[in-house]
Amino acid sequence: MSSLIEQLTMAPLIASVVGIAVAFFFYFRVKGLPEGTETMNMIGQYIREGAMAFLMREYKVLAFYSVGVFLFLWIAFQGQGTGLLAGLCFLFGAFLSLFSGFIGMKAATYANVRTSQAAREGSKPNALLTALDGGAVMGLFVASTAVLGLGVLYYIYAEDTHLATVLHSFAVGASSIALFSRVGGGIYTKAADVGSDIAGKVVEGIPEDDPRNPGGIADNVGDNVGDVAGMGADIYESLVAALVAAMAIALTARAEYINGLFTDGTTGMEARFLAVTIPLFLAGLGLAISILCIFIARALRANAPAMVLRAALVVPSIIMVVAALAIMPALGVSMSIPYALGAGAIGGALIGLVTEYYTAWGPIEKVAEASKTGAGTGVISGISVGMESTVVSLFIVAIVGFLANAVMPEGMGLYGIAMGTVGMLAGTAIVMTVDAYGPIADNAGGISEMSELGKEVRDITDELDAVGNTTAAIGKGFAIGSATLTVLSLFSAFILEVNFVREAEGMGSLVLKLDDAPILVGLLIGACLPYAVGASTMMAVGKAAQAIIDEIIRQFNEIPGLREGNAEPESTVIVDIATKAALSQMILPGSVAILAPVTVGFLLGPASLAGMLAGAVAVGASLSLFMANAGGAWDNAKKHIEAGGLEGHPKGSEAHKAAVIGDTVGDPFKDTSGPGVAILIKVMSVVSLLIAPLIATF
Amino acid sequence: MSSLIEQLTMAPLIASVVGIAVAFFFYFRVKGLPEGTETMNMIGQYIREGAMAFLMREYKVLAFYSVGVFLFLWIAFQGQGTGLLAGLCFLFGAFLSLFSGFIGMKAATYANVRTSQAAREGSKPNALLTALDGGAVMGLFVASTAVLGLGVLYYIYAEDTHLATVLHSFAVGASSIALFSRVGGGIYTKAADVGSDIAGKVVEGIPEDDPRNPGGIADNVGDNVGDVAGMGADIYESLVAALVAAMAIALTARAEYINGLFTDGTTGMEARFLAVTIPLFLAGLGLAISILCIFIARALRANAPAMVLRAALVVPSIIMVVAALAIMPALGVSMSIPYALGAGAIGGALIGLVTEYYTAWGPIEKVAEASKTGAGTGVISGISVGMESTVVSLFIVAIVGFLANAVMPEGMGLYGIAMGTVGMLAGTAIVMTVDAYGPIADNAGGISEMSELGKEVRDITDELDAVGNTTAAIGKGFAIGSATLTVLSLFSAFILEVNFVREAEGMGSLVLKLDDAPILVGLLIGACLPYAVGASTMMAVGKAAQAIIDEIIRQFNEIPGLREGNAEPESTVIVDIATKAALSQMILPGSVAILAPVTVGFLLGPASLAGMLAGAVAVGASLSLFMANAGGAWDNAKKHIEAGGLEGHPKGSEAHKAAVIGDTVGDPFKDTSGPGVAILIKVMSVVSLLIAPLIATF
Repeated sequence: MSSLIEQLTMAPLIASVVGIAVAFFFYFRVKGLPEGTETMNMIGQYIREGAMAFLMREYKVLAFYSVGVFLFLWIAFQGQGTGLLAGLCFLFGAFLSLFSGFIGMKAATYANVRTSQAAREGSKPNALLTALDGGAVMGLFVASTAVLGLGVLYYIYAEDTHLATVLHSFAVGASSIALFSRVGGGIYTKAADVGSDIAGKVVEGIPEDDPRNPGGIADNVGDNVGDVAGMGADIYESLVAALVAAMAIALTARAEYINGLFTDGTTGMEARFLAVTIPLFLAGLGLAISILCIFIARALRANAPAMVLRAALVVPSIIMVVAALAIMPALGVSMSIPYALGAGAIGGALIGLVTEYYTAWGPIEKVAEASKTGAGTGVISGISVGMESTVVSLFIVAIVGFLANAVMPEGMGLYGIAMGTVGMLAGTAIVMTVDAYGPIADNAGGISEMSELGKEVRDITDELDAVGNTTAAIGKGFAIGSATLTVLSLFSAFILEVNFVREAEGMGSLVLKLDDAPILVGLLIGACLPYAVGASTMMAVGKAAQAIIDEIIRQFNEIPGLREGNAEPESTVIVDIATKAALSQMILPGSVAILAPVTVGFLLGPASLAGMLAGAVAVGASLSLFMANAGGAWDNAKKHIEAGGLEGHPKGSEAHKAAVIGDTVGDPFKDTSGPGVAILIKVMSVVSLLIAPLIATF
Repeated sequence: MSSLIEQLTMAPLIASVVGIAVAFFFYFRVKGLPEGTETMNMIGQYIREGAMAFLMREYKVLAFYSVGVFLFLWIAFQGQGTGLLAGLCFLFGAFLSLFSGFIGMKAATYANVRTSQAAREGSKPNALLTALDGGAVMGLFVASTAVLGLGVLYYIYAEDTHLATVLHSFAVGASSIALFSRVGGGIYTKAADVGSDIAGKVVEGIPEDDPRNPGGIADNVGDNVGDVAGMGADIYESLVAALVAAMAIALTARAEYINGLFTDGTTGMEARFLAVTIPLFLAGLGLAISILCIFIARALRANAPAMVLRAALVVPSIIMVVAALAIMPALGVSMSIPYALGAGAIGGALIGLVTEYYTAWGPIEKVAEASKTGAGTGVISGISVGMESTVVSLFIVAIVGFLANAVMPEGMGLYGIAMGTVGMLAGTAIVMTVDAYGPIADNAGGISEMSELGKEVRDITDELDAVGNTTAAIGKGFAIGSATLTVLSLFSAFILEVNFVREAEGMGSLVLKLDDAPILVGLLIGACLPYAVGASTMMAVGKAAQAIIDEIIRQFNEIPGLREGNAEPESTVIVDIATKAALSQMILPGSVAILAPVTVGFLLGPASLAGMLAGAVAVGASLSLFMANAGGAWDNAKKHIEAGGLEGHPKGSEAHKAAVIGDTVGDPFKDTSGPGVAILIKVMSVVSLLIAPLIATF
């Protein structure tokens, strides 16, 4: 390793260690804050225990899964001489995800009740700060461990011939845990949400967070296991996958193309390893900038929190692009890299704006308006809005891809696209902070309501919650946009890897022609798979929600005094139903993601597998955007009506009930199936990349 | 033209002339039947006039469009020396579509009231026969004119260098008219259906076909313009596109690959033109078999009509495969062709069965069950069922593609896939007959109800209608399955054509590598487009339905005595709203389909265009299957509850109301957006194929 590369590798390692230290600082700061009344304390503890219990049971399932994959990799890569190494790197990637999820979610479950307490003390800025710090633990952990894990492996194995396998196995660990966490958490949170909502509002006529609702605790637990832990695993994976894609392309691209990246005449292995190191360095730079921005956001929080949080999603990327514009020429690197970064950063911000427009502005008024003539027209309108937003968002992704490709020197277009993704994900730490802030604020509202803290407290938590809803929608747009570009990069990395191996074996490149029948057959198979995950996750939420509704109705009928508020609901029974449903139903979609590329790869060969990935990314990217945005539109159309936005149709009117039905459909759309499909396509790409050497000579 | 090729070309021409003659025979037979009471006569006339008025106004819009495209082609193909020819062939393809739609729909609007009259006379077999004969006019016309049009052009231009342009322009005419008709008719029928349903049932509490409902006539008109005329244009296009794809591949495939098709040593131009002629010949064979089967179905109608109609969808394909197994060796043609045909025929039947399972059996009981806890869970459940059916159906299409490719000699895999499509579409005449039978029976029920003919008459028409609903779902599965394979074939035909032109210009083949950035960018653009059509058509139906609801409420409030049945509703106002909405809203999706390939092709070149088509087929095939099947599942879940299938939840219960909401969402899913998306991908492929020579040298 040359000293330049060593320095460029050390920088992100340092940034990530700082990130983890700051995360621990926030963790202990939040934990040390006062918890409020005994009731609040108790409810907070119920939520924390329910959430941690779910996580522990989920981890047990994942432990079995991980051991299985570990053994599979050990055996499968025996022939490559990397069996144990591949298995261990996979475990490392998985472990960092689980560890971040664990500590981040624990912080969130401390922060929720303490945010409620700060609101009870009447200080909105303090309440905001508590929720933000709680979210920052997860935000900093996921970004830092992603950079740290990859950085350490790269530092150790940079000059090892097995570097590719090391990085890819790490990514498979990150990706598959993300899929399980996101899908399991997503099923849990939406089953609990939909179930307790319907049973409460529709059947028993009581509000969402009413202390009598037996589903109230499960609903709040769900926010933590789905929107904090699940989301954390998702975002950790995004960063890992984007970096691995860029590094993998640099590792296998043709030498003369790599040389074209350098203006100072750097060539050969030095050029190649610089190209591998740059994405990691930039991610570390993004992390450092994000840490700074978190502190700036904290300082500015009192004035216009909505603007501050929104800016927080966009500003780090912009700063990083400017920094890259200054640094890259100094390293003798072509300006094309900061340009590609910039295309990604601007594209990400645009997608965020588009998502916000479709889920918070004019279009949701149309959905609310359509709800006046019933749920049928309301749902139709939301679907139409979701579809339209998909067109615009995906078109922006396409333009980013086009530009990131166009600015690069010959042959490095796909490296440029990977750089665009890195640019989009520069602010990961702060995006995740804001993402985790949302459910903490939401929980704080729930706790305030269940503890009957009164309207003034609830007003503060409601305002914090509203800010979180908008930023959550923006964050989702970012996530899916970056997922799409990441998959395109991984996809090309896969093909490069296949041909790299073939050439090393003296077999000659495989030309994957778009009009070869095996590729077209693969395309159709790939097009099925996102729907398989969509179907199974929608069904899982529907079934579990029905079981929860039945149980809540049973409790109201069988527990004397519950309806009158004189008896305690049996909340743990609901928590248990949601936990079991989530854990059992996450297996199928998770297995599809792992087994589909392995099966197609080994049975039909790399050409069909490439076709499959192409079909899956086209269908998966559009389907997940559609589901996420339609869900967001219904959610906010309902809130728009609740806020009195539809004259003559207040909360409780027929139009509002119609909008609630839209929201019910949208819940699993936006928080279970949509994100599940987005991760699916990444998992399949990462798995394909890992097994590329095994099937290259098919 | 060798005498063998001449004979093989004459056979389908004769079959199609026979088909048209038989169609006219049915037309006049139906027209001569008695019309029943004065009220029936009047209602029948209202429907006919409304339907014909829509068609006339639609044709005016299409005339402008056609003239525009005609001029564009004239200018664009000037350089190729085929300007006027391309324009005229386009007009010819469009004209045959419009002509078939006109006469077929006219027959349907004669048959509906006469079916009602036959039911009034108490004869179920006669009622069935009338509806069937009425449907057969459309069925025979679309299949016959497709074969006739292509056959005549081929006969004239077989030895002309411009044959490809001739065939492709004809297909563009057929495809673009199909898209407009399907989308325009789909918007009309579902806006009227949803609008009058909601206004009637929900707002005013009166049944769907109540004579007081001002939307009743428009609803029945909609069945004709959407499910008869729109569907007819769709199916005509399917056959044209499938044949043109097969012929285009044969025209441009490499000579040594073509030779591999023949076991008797035929080579050179004779081999190539035999390969071009065979699909046309087989379509003629399928048409002849279908004509026979229509007569057999008519003879057997008295016993188990449901079984007879179901068999009618599958049997012609099977007979054709058997016939092909006998004939092909006699022509010295490899057995691989009948094998590929067989794969398509069996795959088509399987998709039909899968579609029926998901939209008529166990899954719809689950959807009905989920409706017990409200519309939210009901809609979630239907989405899940729709998605699952998509996975299975698309997987079957993939397997058909795999097999049809695998059985072929080297290099002709895509010709095999095109043959599979021809096998799937062998029974077009009878499939369309059964498809058009459905809305005729539905109309007959509506007319009986509006004319207050009593329960016994209504029982007969209800039974006929129920049979039609199942067969409609099967027909839709067939249509989308064949559309997917057709697009794959067209897609490869496009690439072959591009390279054919490039080689003729001495430019060398374009290798479309799946991992080239322009292709991946195209893939993303293609993934957007089906959502653009989905969004605009869903929005169109939603908006028009709301306008209709408002107008119906106005009429009930402002027309004295309407609610009591003492005054006539102003039906024509509703007809007018639906007509205007349909005609204005079909422009955008239609333009997307034409302009997207032209824009991408000329701006980004053939590689991005190919990527775009790949993305569009992956997304479009899955999205349209999903929408069609989810819609079918909701529809039949509602009917299941109405038939008393959900104990304790009869018609009018909360569960039923929830299911009605699902059905409302499903209406535009299955009859507007789903089919619209399916045609979109075909139109884009056909347009790409046509402009291939213009952009090949990009």
